[in-house]
Amino acid sequence: MKSKNTKGNAIVGQSGGPTAAINATLSGVIQGAIENGDIGEIYGMCNGIAGLLSKRIVNLRERFADSGELRLLENTPAAALGSCRVKLPNADTDENRKVYEQIFDIFTEKDIKYFFYIGGNDSMDTVKKLSSYAKKYKASSPVKIIGVPKTIDNDLSDTDHAPGYGSAAKYIASTVQEVSLDNAVYNQKSVLIVEIMGRDAGWLTAAAALPRLCGNKGRAADLLYLPETEFDSERFIEDIKNQLIKKPNIVVAVSEGIKYSDGTYVCEMKEKHETDIFGHLWLSGTANVLKQLLREKLNCKIRAVELNTPQRCAGHISSLCDITEAVMIGKKAVEAAAEGKSGVMMTFRRVQNQPYKIEIGCEDIANIANAIRKVPDIYITPEKNNVTDECLEYILPLIMGEPDIIYKNGLPEYFKL
Amino acid sequence: MKSKNTKGNAIVGQSGGPTAAINATLSGVIQGAIENGDIGEIYGMCNGIAGLLSKRIVNLRERFADSGELRLLENTPAAALGSCRVKLPNADTDENRKVYEQIFDIFTEKDIKYFFYIGGNDSMDTVKKLSSYAKKYKASSPVKIIGVPKTIDNDLSDTDHAPGYGSAAKYIASTVQEVSLDNAVYNQKSVLIVEIMGRDAGWLTAAAALPRLCGNKGRAADLLYLPETEFDSERFIEDIKNQLIKKPNIVVAVSEGIKYSDGTYVCEMKEKHETDIFGHLWLSGTANVLKQLLREKLNCKIRAVELNTPQRCAGHISSLCDITEAVMIGKKAVEAAAEGKSGVMMTFRRVQNQPYKIEIGCEDIANIANAIRKVPDIYITPEKNNVTDECLEYILPLIMGEPDIIYKNGLPEYFKL
Repeated sequence: MKSKNTKGNAIVGQSGGPTAAINATLSGVIQGAIENGDIGEIYGMCNGIAGLLSKRIVNLRERFADSGELRLLENTPAAALGSCRVKLPNADTDENRKVYEQIFDIFTEKDIKYFFYIGGNDSMDTVKKLSSYAKKYKASSPVKIIGVPKTIDNDLSDTDHAPGYGSAAKYIASTVQEVSLDNAVYNQKSVLIVEIMGRDAGWLTAAAALPRLCGNKGRAADLLYLPETEFDSERFIEDIKNQLIKKPNIVVAVSEGIKYSDGTYVCEMKEKHETDIFGHLWLSGTANVLKQLLREKLNCKIRAVELNTPQRCAGHISSLCDITEAVMIGKKAVEAAAEGKSGVMMTFRRVQNQPYKIEIGCEDIANIANAIRKVPDIYITPEKNNVTDECLEYILPLIMGEPDIIYKNGLPEYFKL
Repeated sequence: MKSKNTKGNAIVGQSGGPTAAINATLSGVIQGAIENGDIGEIYGMCNGIAGLLSKRIVNLRERFADSGELRLLENTPAAALGSCRVKLPNADTDENRKVYEQIFDIFTEKDIKYFFYIGGNDSMDTVKKLSSYAKKYKASSPVKIIGVPKTIDNDLSDTDHAPGYGSAAKYIASTVQEVSLDNAVYNQKSVLIVEIMGRDAGWLTAAAALPRLCGNKGRAADLLYLPETEFDSERFIEDIKNQLIKKPNIVVAVSEGIKYSDGTYVCEMKEKHETDIFGHLWLSGTANVLKQLLREKLNCKIRAVELNTPQRCAGHISSLCDITEAVMIGKKAVEAAAEGKSGVMMTFRRVQNQPYKIEIGCEDIANIANAIRKVPDIYITPEKNNVTDECLEYILPLIMGEPDIIYKNGLPEYFKL
C-alpha cells in the first residue's frame, strides 16, 4: 500500500461571479476526491488562482472530515473558498510566462496532480491557458487540468446548461409570480418592469416566462426583451400599449444587457430623446430608464424592480435538480481527471427531455473558452418580445425540485468556512 | 332553525399595500364566519371599499366550499380580493355624507351585519370613519365594524406587531444573509448598501440585523440607518470607514425613508454638495444616492441593492408564526363581532417572549387610526447606526417557522380567485 505522501494531491478553486450552486460543485469535487483512493490531500485555493499565487491554501480533507458539513456546503450560496476575477496573460513573452512558472512551481511544491477550476467563461479561459502552457512547456508535468462549469448566465458553450442557472431561473420565475400578484392588486392599469441579469445572453430573462408553462400564464412576464435581439424603443412602447388592451396589469422582463441597433446599451441612455431628460448614466439601470421612457408615453402606474444580486445567491429557493447536478458534475470531474483527462471542461448532454435525463461528459477546453452560447432564434418569438414554449420546455426540468433547506432560528443555515 | 336568509351576512375587504400574510387573515375571517352558525352569506369586496361602492362583490362561502382552497389562500401573497387606496372624506358636509349613506344602503340591501376590513393605517382610517358615522347617524344599524391589522411596516399602534411584518422581516433577514455571502467572495474591500422599505418606521430595516442574533453575526447588516434618527452624511461616511477597518466586506442597511435634519429625504438628494453631482431626483433610490456619495469618498467596491416589492410578497419564504397568527386574528375578528364589538381594531398583546406567547384582543379604533408606531429609542444604539439585541429579541419570534409551501412544476403554487 502506497503511503499518503506518494499519492498525488488535488487542488480546487472557485472563480467568477457567485451562484447558488458553485459550492455544491465544490462539495462534489471534495466527495469525488475522498472516494478516489489515489488522491492524497485535497486543497482549496482561497480566491481562485489569485489565492493560489499567494499560496493562500486550505486543507479541505481536514475541514470536511464531518460529512454533515459537506451537506451544508451544498446548499450554501456564493463561493465558500472565495472567488477572483483574474485573467492570465498570454504566455507569449518571458515576462508573461513567469506567472505560469510560478503556478507550476506551486504544483510541484504541493505535489498537485489534479487541478479543478469551477467557473464561467473567464474562468475557463484560465483553464485553457494553463492547459496550453502545460502542453507546450510542461510536457512532463503530471497535473490534470479540469474546468467545471458554473454560471447563472447559462452561456457556456458545448454543454446543455451550466450549474447555477437552474437555481437562478427558479428564483426569477418564483419572484416574477409573486411580484405579478403584487402588481395586480389595485383596480388600475399598471406596468411592472423587472430587470434581470445577463449581459450577453437572455437565458435568465427567459425564465420570467416560466409560470406560463407551469399553469400560471397570468403570472408570467407578458413581454420579454433579451439581449439577443436589437431593442427598439418605439416597438417596445407599441408592444406595451397593445398588451395593456388585453390585460390591465402587465409584467415586462428586460435583460440588463439589451442594446439599441447601434450597439449602445439601453442603460446608457444614448438615444437623443432621452439625453435631455435623463441625468447621469451611473444612476440608472435598464428598468429605470425604461420606466422613465414609459412615463412619458403612458398614463398609468409604472414601477421598476431590479432583481440584482439576490437572483444569483438565493440559496433558500435553489433548484434540487441544479444542486444535485452540480454535485454530480464535481464528482465526475474527479473521475475524468483520474482517467487521465486534462485540458477539458465537464459538460452536460441532455439525452431526453421527458422524462428529463442527462449524461455528463467533457469537451476540449479550447473549443469552449470565451465562446458565448446565446438564446437561439428558434427560442424567441417572431415579434422578438417573448420566448417560445420550446424554450420554456428546455428550462423547466432545470428548476424542478426543492432541496431540504435547514432553518435555524427562522433563517436558512449556511456553511461557514 | 332560522332560515339562511334571516341570518346576518358578513363582508370582508382588503386594503392598502399587499403583504405575504393578508390573504391568511382573509382565510381566517372566512373560516371564522363559516364556523359561526349565525352568519349567512360571506361576501368579499373586490378592491376594498372602492369595490363595495361599485358593488363588485363575490360570494366567498361558495368560492371556498373546498377547504383545500383556503389552505392555498393562506400561503398566497398579495391581496386575493384586490386592494385599494381610498380615503373616505370627513362626514362634515351633506355632500361628503353621501358616500357613507351609499355604503350603509349597500349594507342594508345585502343584509350585512358584519364588516371586516383588513389593512394598515390608512385602512384603519376607513374603519374609524365608518364607525364614527354609524355611531352618529346610524344608531339603529346592526352592522359591527371591525378593523383587522395588516402591514409589513409594523407601524400600527396599540398592537405588539401586525401580520405581514414577520414574513417581510424573515425575507429581509434571509436575503441579507445571502447577499452578505455574495458580497464577501472577492479578496477586496467592499460595501453593499441594501435599501429596505419603511417610509416612517424602521422595523423592516431593523430585521437586517437579525442574523446577528441567529448565530450569524458576520452575515448581518453591519450598520443600519432607520428613519427614526436624523441622517448625517459625514457621520455615515465615518461609520463606514471605521467599519471597513474591522472587516473587509460590509453590509449597510438603509431605510428608504431616512431624512436629513432639515426633513428632506436622502433620496431627494437636496444636500448642497450633492446637487452638483447628481441629476434628476426621480431616478434614484436612497441606496443609489448613498452609493454615489461613498464613491466620492472611498476607494473600494460599492454596490446598491433595493429589495423593492419582493420583500412584501415573497410568499415562498413567509414566516409560519406570521401566517398562523394572521389566520388566528382573522378568526378572532369574527368572534369579536359576534360578541357585539364594533369600532375596534384587533390587536396582539405579547404575554411573554420566551417562550413566545401572545393574546389577541381589540382596541378602540379611535386611538389607533393614523398613529404611527415607530422603533423606540431604546431599540436603537447610542451611535444611531444599529439596533440593540433587545430589538432583535422582539423581532425574532415573529420570523420563526416555515409554512409547508406546495410546489408544482418547480414553482410555489398560489391561489387563483
